[in-house]
Amino acid sequence: MQTKILAINAGSSSLKFQLFAMPQETTLCQGIVERIGLSDARFTLKYSNQYIEHILSVDNHQQAVELIVHHLLEVGVVSQLDEISGVGHRVAHGGEVFHDSALIDERALTQIEQLCELAPLHNPVNLVGIRAFMNTLPLAKAVAVFDTSFHHTLAAKDYLYPIPYEYYQRYHIRRYGFHGTSHKYVSQAYANACNTPLEQLNLITCHLGNGSSLCAIEHGRSIQTSMGFTPLAGVMMGTRCGDIDPSILPFLAEKESLSASDLNTMINQQSGLFGVSGLSHDCRDLQQAAEQGNQRAALALEMFIERVRAFIGQYLVKLGHVDAIIFTGGIGEHAAAIRVKICTSLQPLNILIDVEKNRATSMIISRDESPITLAVIATNEELMIAKDVMRIGL
Amino acid sequence: MQTKILAINAGSSSLKFQLFAMPQETTLCQGIVERIGLSDARFTLKYSNQYIEHILSVDNHQQAVELIVHHLLEVGVVSQLDEISGVGHRVAHGGEVFHDSALIDERALTQIEQLCELAPLHNPVNLVGIRAFMNTLPLAKAVAVFDTSFHHTLAAKDYLYPIPYEYYQRYHIRRYGFHGTSHKYVSQAYANACNTPLEQLNLITCHLGNGSSLCAIEHGRSIQTSMGFTPLAGVMMGTRCGDIDPSILPFLAEKESLSASDLNTMINQQSGLFGVSGLSHDCRDLQQAAEQGNQRAALALEMFIERVRAFIGQYLVKLGHVDAIIFTGGIGEHAAAIRVKICTSLQPLNILIDVEKNRATSMIISRDESPITLAVIATNEELMIAKDVMRIGL
Repeated sequence: MQTKILAINAGSSSLKFQLFAMPQETTLCQGIVERIGLSDARFTLKYSNQYIEHILSVDNHQQAVELIVHHLLEVGVVSQLDEISGVGHRVAHGGEVFHDSALIDERALTQIEQLCELAPLHNPVNLVGIRAFMNTLPLAKAVAVFDTSFHHTLAAKDYLYPIPYEYYQRYHIRRYGFHGTSHKYVSQAYANACNTPLEQLNLITCHLGNGSSLCAIEHGRSIQTSMGFTPLAGVMMGTRCGDIDPSILPFLAEKESLSASDLNTMINQQSGLFGVSGLSHDCRDLQQAAEQGNQRAALALEMFIERVRAFIGQYLVKLGHVDAIIFTGGIGEHAAAIRVKICTSLQPLNILIDVEKNRATSMIISRDESPITLAVIATNEELMIAKDVMRIGL
Repeated sequence: MQTKILAINAGSSSLKFQLFAMPQETTLCQGIVERIGLSDARFTLKYSNQYIEHILSVDNHQQAVELIVHHLLEVGVVSQLDEISGVGHRVAHGGEVFHDSALIDERALTQIEQLCELAPLHNPVNLVGIRAFMNTLPLAKAVAVFDTSFHHTLAAKDYLYPIPYEYYQRYHIRRYGFHGTSHKYVSQAYANACNTPLEQLNLITCHLGNGSSLCAIEHGRSIQTSMGFTPLAGVMMGTRCGDIDPSILPFLAEKESLSASDLNTMINQQSGLFGVSGLSHDCRDLQQAAEQGNQRAALALEMFIERVRAFIGQYLVKLGHVDAIIFTGGIGEHAAAIRVKICTSLQPLNILIDVEKNRATSMIISRDESPITLAVIATNEELMIAKDVMRIGL
């Protein structure tokens, strides 16, 4: 039976949405409300070959939801609201509670709220989005799809940190990992594309974008991932530092009289590609600047590449045998020059990139004789959310 | 021409010494003064088959030096002081200034002093030791041997951190790496043992002890190492956490009202094997406890093993081709059960351990057909210091 499912990604001042016809997995429309809370908020909607944009005042997320629903009806992608049988919400943090996507009832709402402490910037706004849609579409099933739950399969030795054990007991400080929906999606898509059950594959998935993480997936189960207690950890990112010598923080706190909050700002918003280059968090800007001779831009890119390679090396050892390495995310899908630098020099480790296929961004970018396949797969977290609504909610 | 060289390792309340006949590299005697500053300080000396121990009052390092020199003469390993033509001092931090061991003159003393900011616990006591020996043995050449200088060959992309670049410019925050004397010693010893020039070998050296670090050595040059700005970084250690999600520090600073200094204490002295097990920083204690069913002891050991394997994986990718992986340090040399766990499951990566040779702690512990050799080599930082005194000072 055909039905329509909304996939929602709520940010502090934005609401991104995509409407699918399921189980066909067809996108009916997608759009975003940005600058929520301001008098010049921006609403955009793409459907068929049409594009709508409005600048208008949007006070809050509830108004944004009503605006979206109003337009869905107006442009006719939905003729009456009960056609939307489910709404899937991206939720940042599922803690140790949610091992899978979950139907949202009062209990789940309470649990997501309790997890706000672990994701103070994200879970509260995710809840605002959830509640707004529950008000406007009370009959649709609401499903929470967590960034963390794909990684619940990590072993204790891989999720615990070597700090006093009581901090795990008292504050649940452990590795959670994020980008789970993306890692899960591309691993399944790869298995489908090569007609092999996911349970027979060992994969390294590289979600490289403004936020980046890698994941070691053994027979469909995440066994290690580079993000940690927070999405700061792991590889260097646009403005996040990733893993550094932790001693640097108390050192700088003393030298520069930085508070805990200042430190968070520095490592999350002033570091990474931006911090090293002093120029931009965006790889494309840095590639252009590097070509024009900007040495710090070139250095920032080299550092990023080194750090991605280091995690690939870790996960080769972790998995022992690897069938494929998959690139996804803004950088992973589109930056052929960065992919080639990550993969070149891995020849002794049986990773043989085909420079021509890589330039053309074929799905398979390794040479035929490469024992480890290299692949590029566009991620689709929204579709994964819609599929989880079908699986969990309906 | 034969001469005698002292190798010195000064701690805050201890002074370790070893006297070599050079160039024969024969140990004439070795010992330690412990509990300096207390009325029940302990002096021990081993020479030939003799062993001396005294409990006595030692006010400061100067007195400790005089005590040592007095006994060298008394037991006859030295018949007059001018036989000691050089004294080599282990110095923790050479910053970006010292790319090699250095003859200590007034300029070098000033530079080592300026580097105290980067190694506030170590460089000051190293200087105290240097000055005490310069007073007592004014004719002997004094040479500083830095823990960091072997790693001066790291490329900028490998020593810079993805934090705001001005912190590198302002405070010299970068990766320095430590244990350089040990990594250098075992890599040379391995090259000698297999009659191959070090310049033709790619090696991963694993110095695993109460402090642990790994090093990727390409043709004799350190190109990456796991310790960083401080000796905290990298793998988990006895009481140090190594690399963790840096966000954990500001999170805990707020939750537990910890100062920068409290944080340093936590990550340096209350973490690592001790922090996870709640029991001991010593692998031997944890192995025993794990055998008796203590799950957190077992978990701490598993975490340590995982983290060492992760760095081996990184360095396999970094080096591309690897000839040998070398274990050294207290754990690396003596914990056969831990070595076997680190190496087992690396078979798909051409690392084939020979369980019998490993148990017997042969120098070579891999199977004959292993394309990557596994070796155990006892480190000898004191001898490396004495050799550097010969090379630099005489």
